[in-house]
Amino acid sequence: MLTIHHLGLSRSDRIIWLAEELGLEYRLVKHDRDPETFRSPPSLWEVSPMGKAPVIEDDGLVIPESGAIVEYLLDKYGEGRLRPAAGTPEYIEYLHWLHAAESTLMTPVLMNMIAGMSGVDNPAYNSFVHGEFETVLGYMEGVLANREYIAGEFSAADIMVAFPLMMLDSPLIPGPAGGDVLGSYANIQAYLLRLRDRPMWLKAEAIFRPE
Amino acid sequence: MLTIHHLGLSRSDRIIWLAEELGLEYRLVKHDRDPETFRSPPSLWEVSPMGKAPVIEDDGLVIPESGAIVEYLLDKYGEGRLRPAAGTPEYIEYLHWLHAAESTLMTPVLMNMIAGMSGVDNPAYNSFVHGEFETVLGYMEGVLANREYIAGEFSAADIMVAFPLMMLDSPLIPGPAGGDVLGSYANIQAYLLRLRDRPMWLKAEAIFRPE
Repeated sequence: MLTIHHLGLSRSDRIIWLAEELGLEYRLVKHDRDPETFRSPPSLWEVSPMGKAPVIEDDGLVIPESGAIVEYLLDKYGEGRLRPAAGTPEYIEYLHWLHAAESTLMTPVLMNMIAGMSGVDNPAYNSFVHGEFETVLGYMEGVLANREYIAGEFSAADIMVAFPLMMLDSPLIPGPAGGDVLGSYANIQAYLLRLRDRPMWLKAEAIFRPE
Repeated sequence: MLTIHHLGLSRSDRIIWLAEELGLEYRLVKHDRDPETFRSPPSLWEVSPMGKAPVIEDDGLVIPESGAIVEYLLDKYGEGRLRPAAGTPEYIEYLHWLHAAESTLMTPVLMNMIAGMSGVDNPAYNSFVHGEFETVLGYMEGVLANREYIAGEFSAADIMVAFPLMMLDSPLIPGPAGGDVLGSYANIQAYLLRLRDRPMWLKAEAIFRPE
């Protein structure tokens, strides 16, 4: 049986959400961060080669990395759902955002958060982070003017990009860019509302919400 | 015909290398960074939706993001090369490193570089970056003790992970972590030598090397 290892406040939110959207049966193992250091506990290191979440176990395989897990689960259990058909322009959009979620989009989100947690507030650094936000959020804002979801129909690419966007939308995440980065992006905000309105998002969120 | 847009000193190195490994015919368009700001020139913004490289044009499609371009080119022109067969354990390793290259691995590399360029030298920030290096490089070092390439046989995952490793190996990249991050990782260093010894790497490097 599929096992999903969940670390509180982490990218494993995505995998629970994906599993619920696909209606998969799975065993959930919860791991809690060290309350002082915010680091992964030893229990996660026992499973995950780099002590990171998400990680799944299935058929004797251990698979880390959000994007890899998404592709694996869709290959094995997707039955064509949540991923546009190969070879279509929508598939290219899906592929683009699947990868951009953890690179072009996640990079400034993480840099802002780590700077905030570390007390870094350097003009050149902030200018880089702000520039990246303007580039990627500005582009997404335009894309979402014409589409309900990031690659057209709802797909696993939405599950991938939602995580960094929701980090930006959280008042808990510190950072020199401030707590209202998404404030001027109406289409992105409306998109997040659409995602948060999905029944399987609500079900997943009740599962992974910190107690 | 396939067009590869190349920005000097950027991730588009990967796509030229992949195209050479696959023996593809392509049109190369070179773009130069602004020598003062190091930013992308307007010519790249005219093609790439976020002004970033790599970006390719093929069959009327514009495709950005290294990982997406790699998957697209292998789907269309790979004929089974440079990617393990779907459903095998080697394919899972490939998928893991394809995605890890721009997330788990690239994040500390970029954070180190941007901090270096910005003059950030903050103990908590550096400690985060060092910890990430230890985690990901320590794990790769162990993996490469048993394998010649990162997913077994040479694959496009090697092309993906080589880029951040070569950034770390470059004396030109500043950063508080210093210029010898790879110094204590003998297997990673030997791996980079193997990659740099590949005839198609040498051919690609002569194409993308800055003048």
